Amino acid sequence: RKSLRIAVIPGDGIGKEVMELGVLCLETIATIYKIQLEFEHFDFASCDYYKEHGEMMPPDWKEKLLQFDAIYFGAVGMPDLVPDDVSLWGSLLKFRREFDQYINLRPCRLMPGVPSPLANRKPGDIDFWIVRENTEGEYSSIGGKMFEGTDREIVIQETVMTRTGVDRVLRYAFDLAQSRPRKILTSATKSNGISITMPYWDSRVQEMATKYPDVTVEKYHIDILTAHFVQRPKKFDVVVGSNLFGDILSDLGPACTGTIGIAPSANINPEGKFPSLFEPVHGSAPDIAGQGIANPVGMIWAGQMMLHHFEHREAADALLQAIEKVMARAQKDVITPDMGGKGTTKKFGEAIKDEI
Amino acid sequence: RKSLRIAVIPGDGIGKEVMELGVLCLETIATIYKIQLEFEHFDFASCDYYKEHGEMMPPDWKEKLLQFDAIYFGAVGMPDLVPDDVSLWGSLLKFRREFDQYINLRPCRLMPGVPSPLANRKPGDIDFWIVRENTEGEYSSIGGKMFEGTDREIVIQETVMTRTGVDRVLRYAFDLAQSRPRKILTSATKSNGISITMPYWDSRVQEMATKYPDVTVEKYHIDILTAHFVQRPKKFDVVVGSNLFGDILSDLGPACTGTIGIAPSANINPEGKFPSLFEPVHGSAPDIAGQGIANPVGMIWAGQMMLHHFEHREAADALLQAIEKVMARAQKDVITPDMGGKGTTKKFGEAIKDEI
Ligand SMILES: CC(C)[C@H](C(=O)O)[C@@H](O)C(=O)O
Ligand SMILES: CC(C)[C@H](C(=O)O)[C@@H](O)C(=O)O
Repeated sequence: RKSLRIAVIPGDGIGKEVMELGVLCLETIATIYKIQLEFEHFDFASCDYYKEHGEMMPPDWKEKLLQFDAIYFGAVGMPDLVPDDVSLWGSLLKFRREFDQYINLRPCRLMPGVPSPLANRKPGDIDFWIVRENTEGEYSSIGGKMFEGTDREIVIQETVMTRTGVDRVLRYAFDLAQSRPRKILTSATKSNGISITMPYWDSRVQEMATKYPDVTVEKYHIDILTAHFVQRPKKFDVVVGSNLFGDILSDLGPACTGTIGIAPSANINPEGKFPSLFEPVHGSAPDIAGQGIANPVGMIWAGQMMLHHFEHREAADALLQAIEKVMARAQKDVITPDMGGKGTTKKFGEAIKDEI
Repeated sequence: RKSLRIAVIPGDGIGKEVMELGVLCLETIATIYKIQLEFEHFDFASCDYYKEHGEMMPPDWKEKLLQFDAIYFGAVGMPDLVPDDVSLWGSLLKFRREFDQYINLRPCRLMPGVPSPLANRKPGDIDFWIVRENTEGEYSSIGGKMFEGTDREIVIQETVMTRTGVDRVLRYAFDLAQSRPRKILTSATKSNGISITMPYWDSRVQEMATKYPDVTVEKYHIDILTAHFVQRPKKFDVVVGSNLFGDILSDLGPACTGTIGIAPSANINPEGKFPSLFEPVHGSAPDIAGQGIANPVGMIWAGQMMLHHFEHREAADALLQAIEKVMARAQKDVITPDMGGKGTTKKFGEAIKDEI
């Protein structure tokens, strides 16, 4: 593939702020490694767009975006303007579902220069992947209310798991585990309490395991698994979970490595039939938006995952090294407040650009 | 109330081991404070019972247990013998539901002598309560499969929230927050992703908040909330969550304070129409069962919560102090391996008894 077409969607809040630095770093690395990147910017999938148009995206959003190889996405959500379920279901969650980005892949790595909230951990100690189911499960749109507004009010929402949906994410996770030296797959479940869908998930894990005899499979209930993330993070290699469990673990994991400001997330349609989406794990953070102090690393690292996904391995490795180097230096006037510094989004991002 | 009638149900694995010490400590404190406790032991609600009878409990379990003020419960589950969903839904989850123990209350406190996995925290730094809805929500028994055994297989499970169920746990949590100096209530939600039940939860929180103008209400999505448990545990005062979210947080919280081996849990029917149930947070831990090294503090502390619930405040305070003192001494040959010691369940429990 010669030229990569990338749709840039900054979204809301700090999404807009970190996006500038993300694009800057990608452009820099692309020049050096002679990769052709074409960027096109879109202002939809933001609450500002909603305010103006009464919807999160134009009717032809799908045709528009289908012409791109990838979506480079900031963050969406301004709960004071638009309820979160409206803004997210009208944008990010729509992309994931309609572009069948059924894999959500997130690294969990203790990076140099980030003080971990955990005692006695050093870079290299924590290094695993979280594979999250990204289209079904607990994030369903089936359900409703009865006896609304009365004391008898009942509200129901259905969790939906399909064999297709469960098996394909498990296959991806098993493949990933098999490709790594330790070959350990941890499955998040809650089959002791959630007694229909979760035992089903377990049974598919068991079935899939028979095809990967060299992969060690461990099953943990989500409650105790969160405890192990804090107490024994070293032991994880690849962790797979449903949409909700993957969501929780992929905020908790990065928090254990210091700050969720640095964690990236790839929403992948492995077949390449639809564009995949690359974003930071953090949200739009209305509380710090506008101050120019958001950590740009999550956004830049998401760009790195994009390069890697499209098999620009050398460029991807170089970018990751640049990120790590700047983080390791941990200069107080460069790194952002979430990492204990006094730097700005711009300074931090430009330092990474210069390092490239 | 002169005499307290207590049904003792040790259950499986380490449940049986820690129960002995729990009862021992309760008997000791009762003698000193002249509280009449009557204990009766039951072998049902265990996997051994299941193996013999093909069910977890006898048909008349309810009549039997209704004669008690409280159930003192160990832990249940032996996944190699009986699937977890069968053993738990046939015992613990049945008690919670049929005895309408709709409040699950769990302290989260950094105790002396426990090395916290978090960096730079000391006793007193973490001290909050988790209030968990305990009868409905994600732990439902509605749902099923279609196209079973084929590629089109679909599995559905419904999350059910009722106004009665949500409001009563919120009221309890608001009351508790109001009774504390800081008066902060944190609500766990996920209304940006789980778009029907969770926005409903939020709306009930908002409604209830109008009745407690002096309580500060904070709302966090469960993913970022788990991150804050690790990064900023000091700021919490009372945390309220649905059945699943409460479950997750009340393993994660104690893990952040060192070990879930010490955390207790009260399953309360506030009206006293049915017996309430007091248990350690930890499970039956088949991996260490039989070795006599399980930490008995969760079980003993659960007994302390029981005394407190029945308004034996002085006795309860004395017991908590005894626990804290022995923990603070942290003698290697007394405390159990999960706390970094070489002691046994028996030694640790007896040290607490002696301290009383
Ligand atoms: C054993 C299990 C069903 C139970 C639960 O999920 O409620 C346990 O984790 C708890 O927290 O009491
Ligand atoms: C914003 C929200 C809907 C989203 C999710 O829950 O998937 C986010 O938390 C994430 O992890 O990407």
